[in-house]
Amino acid sequence: MKNNLKGDKLVASIEEAAKLCDLKNGQTISFHHHFRDGDYIVNMVIQKLAEMGFKNLVLAASSLTDCHVDLIEYIKSGVISRIETSGLRGKLANEISEGLMDTPVSFRSHGGRAFAIANGSLPIDVAFLGAPSCDPAGNANGYCRDIEDAVMCGSVGYAKCDAQYAKKTIILTNNIVPYPNIPFGIPEYDVDYIVKVDEIGDPAGIMKGATRFTTNPKELLMAELASDVIKAAGIIKDGFSFQTGTGGASLAVTRFLREKMLEKKITAAFALGGITGSIVDLHEEGLVKKLLDVQSFDLKAAQSLKNNRFHHQISAEYYASPEGPGAAVNFLDVVVLSATEVDVNFNVNVLTGSDGIIRGAIGGHQDTAYGAGLTIVVCPLTRGRLPCLVDRVGCLVTPGKTVDVLVTERGLAVNPLRNDLKERFIAAGLPVLPVAELREMTESITGRAAPIEYTDKVVGIVTYRDGSVIDQIRQIR
Amino acid sequence: MKNNLKGDKLVASIEEAAKLCDLKNGQTISFHHHFRDGDYIVNMVIQKLAEMGFKNLVLAASSLTDCHVDLIEYIKSGVISRIETSGLRGKLANEISEGLMDTPVSFRSHGGRAFAIANGSLPIDVAFLGAPSCDPAGNANGYCRDIEDAVMCGSVGYAKCDAQYAKKTIILTNNIVPYPNIPFGIPEYDVDYIVKVDEIGDPAGIMKGATRFTTNPKELLMAELASDVIKAAGIIKDGFSFQTGTGGASLAVTRFLREKMLEKKITAAFALGGITGSIVDLHEEGLVKKLLDVQSFDLKAAQSLKNNRFHHQISAEYYASPEGPGAAVNFLDVVVLSATEVDVNFNVNVLTGSDGIIRGAIGGHQDTAYGAGLTIVVCPLTRGRLPCLVDRVGCLVTPGKTVDVLVTERGLAVNPLRNDLKERFIAAGLPVLPVAELREMTESITGRAAPIEYTDKVVGIVTYRDGSVIDQIRQIR
Repeated sequence: MKNNLKGDKLVASIEEAAKLCDLKNGQTISFHHHFRDGDYIVNMVIQKLAEMGFKNLVLAASSLTDCHVDLIEYIKSGVISRIETSGLRGKLANEISEGLMDTPVSFRSHGGRAFAIANGSLPIDVAFLGAPSCDPAGNANGYCRDIEDAVMCGSVGYAKCDAQYAKKTIILTNNIVPYPNIPFGIPEYDVDYIVKVDEIGDPAGIMKGATRFTTNPKELLMAELASDVIKAAGIIKDGFSFQTGTGGASLAVTRFLREKMLEKKITAAFALGGITGSIVDLHEEGLVKKLLDVQSFDLKAAQSLKNNRFHHQISAEYYASPEGPGAAVNFLDVVVLSATEVDVNFNVNVLTGSDGIIRGAIGGHQDTAYGAGLTIVVCPLTRGRLPCLVDRVGCLVTPGKTVDVLVTERGLAVNPLRNDLKERFIAAGLPVLPVAELREMTESITGRAAPIEYTDKVVGIVTYRDGSVIDQIRQIR
Repeated sequence: MKNNLKGDKLVASIEEAAKLCDLKNGQTISFHHHFRDGDYIVNMVIQKLAEMGFKNLVLAASSLTDCHVDLIEYIKSGVISRIETSGLRGKLANEISEGLMDTPVSFRSHGGRAFAIANGSLPIDVAFLGAPSCDPAGNANGYCRDIEDAVMCGSVGYAKCDAQYAKKTIILTNNIVPYPNIPFGIPEYDVDYIVKVDEIGDPAGIMKGATRFTTNPKELLMAELASDVIKAAGIIKDGFSFQTGTGGASLAVTRFLREKMLEKKITAAFALGGITGSIVDLHEEGLVKKLLDVQSFDLKAAQSLKNNRFHHQISAEYYASPEGPGAAVNFLDVVVLSATEVDVNFNVNVLTGSDGIIRGAIGGHQDTAYGAGLTIVVCPLTRGRLPCLVDRVGCLVTPGKTVDVLVTERGLAVNPLRNDLKERFIAAGLPVLPVAELREMTESITGRAAPIEYTDKVVGIVTYRDGSVIDQIRQIR
């Protein structure tokens, strides 16, 4: 019997959806950053909410980027009074570092955010989630099967948590597609309303095409050394698993890893994390059985998620939640991570630059460093004339006790907690040096840097993945 | 940094898992029925819990079958004091009809059960869920990719809700497979403990091979008439959707539908529900784009779920929850359902036989009848010498106002609420008769049946999909 319920989640506008969700001043709204630098959703929604007169909103984004510079205006006018994010970049980050906000920004890792959302310490009232396709029931995806060249972001892994736990979830999409939009990224039962918008983002900013290998000799040197470390640690065997990032050096690690896998005829069980086109190549070549993708870093990765059955979309909770032993990060044999700064105790900073200004994101750094069997941080001794290996990081993001090896362009240092590894690396002829010696080399290049001057005002709270406060970022004087 | 968390959900025994879950007397334990008549899990678990001394447990199964006859003993000994299920069959059903239990059995539809679990009116303390494969993190599936001829059940759609909402979830599996067991039926974050058992079920009972077409002329006649009804209603056009059951006649509808689709070169958007091999044939032939599978009815369906990307596993909540407009049943253009009895007001009984004894299951009957644009009930006027079209059903399961058309071997009757359809059917030359006339034909065959004698004792409570009580089943005198 016809019940006339079919497809009535579609509403006319962002304003109408916000009203139906009964959004109130002071409540928490959330966003994902799968559209990266091409995102139109955050600015579009905040503009509408500002026009509607909302004040004191808490903006909980999985991350914020350069393109969210408009937020400065809405912070000044009191529309946004607090921010939760994985990271900040560009002019917004600069202004926040300089004291723009009365309340400090809370920084969380991807796993920490999922955990906080799931356990109620970061309750979301209304999630505004952009999606490249959505059917009238609310099944949403990071790509569109019905229109060949539609804008896409691939995995919507961070958004999955928001949809699941938010009191109300609104999908903003440029493509309403026929039911059922399966396999779905976000299931209909996590969606309350759908708004059709003309554009969700700038394709050039969402997907910059295939990621390219670095040709920077220093990065290539570090990448090859990192892959030698992985080999010497005995990790490259059938069924192993790995995660590499998108930085020049970490991306290049994938290439060197590939050579070593081919040489020994090894197949990996899975690759995890932000997935890149070079990881997809390994999958399609049969060298990596399964891809667990919380975020597709380039167009090739997004297309593979759409087309390869064992390229599997996972939520941030599945990826990296510290609750329970089952998160994917706990099954990682090795992760290769980058850093803005590392110190002699292997502590890592990925949030602020050597000048103390916010210009990064925690991402999955804390989570994978904790979970992986072997955690390698790749970081040059210096960048420009600034030291990257320091006595004490300007901002503590990932504790040194979860980092095993530091790879630099002048050699590698092993965490004293892992003397088992040190012996193996020396036996393999790798250039193992005391971290103090690498630090001395750094200082001989840069001299002793003048300390950064801060005021007493706290502009950022850095949390560890379990929600505990691990550091504070203060205002630059 | 190695954290030693990897894979520690595996525990030694059902007893240990029950202790770790802190199971207490009087609590609710749940099971799925994807192993159908081959299920070993319910009997195995209850036996262990009985040995451990548990009493007064509430057994909430998605359904129970002939093979659960052992429960009689555990009801008598006080281990089980209440049952929630979609249906009951065999000796257990007979004994319950005869007054075995002090507390009536609660019957719920698949959508109603999912809704009750999700909204807290059926809280599950510990779910014991059998799975043909599970990795050490808890990602479980209804098939096993790592062992070719392992026992399989296909979709674990009903179990997904239990895992999601139970306070604690235990997976019982015969195959521990390497991480990550993706795409998963049950995700690791819904799983607390894993127990390896030798056998989860009898393959012959779980999967009886390919379902076969009926050769019963009465069933074929009704099936063809049902397909004519679908055609005359104007439903067979590109992008339509349907659900047909497994009964002889409903299964045969698929065949006649196929002919009509080929004739008109029509492609359906999706088929829903319990999926059979004949629906899979249509999918593989390109006649049905997507399959939404809450339960795989035969081996071919289970294998297709494993191998066909757009044969998609859905949870009972996704399938049929009455909460929100997005459930798949609301997108159905047509459903063909069977019945044990229908009455002149189009009310349907699928729970008790004409003798008043429980021998069926609500299944998705109420849910699809409510959601589908056109609801067809196929039921012969008589079975053996017993009337199936009656003045008033012995047990009300699906309200007549949600049923549009009754198809019998002697013609069809249209619900007076749907005179729009009646005109179309007459114009198409279909044998439309007043339901009263079909009822008279029935009585002329069977005579007026003597009323069934009941006691005052209530043995079953029939709920509608929203949780309201729609009927009671009384003890047979």
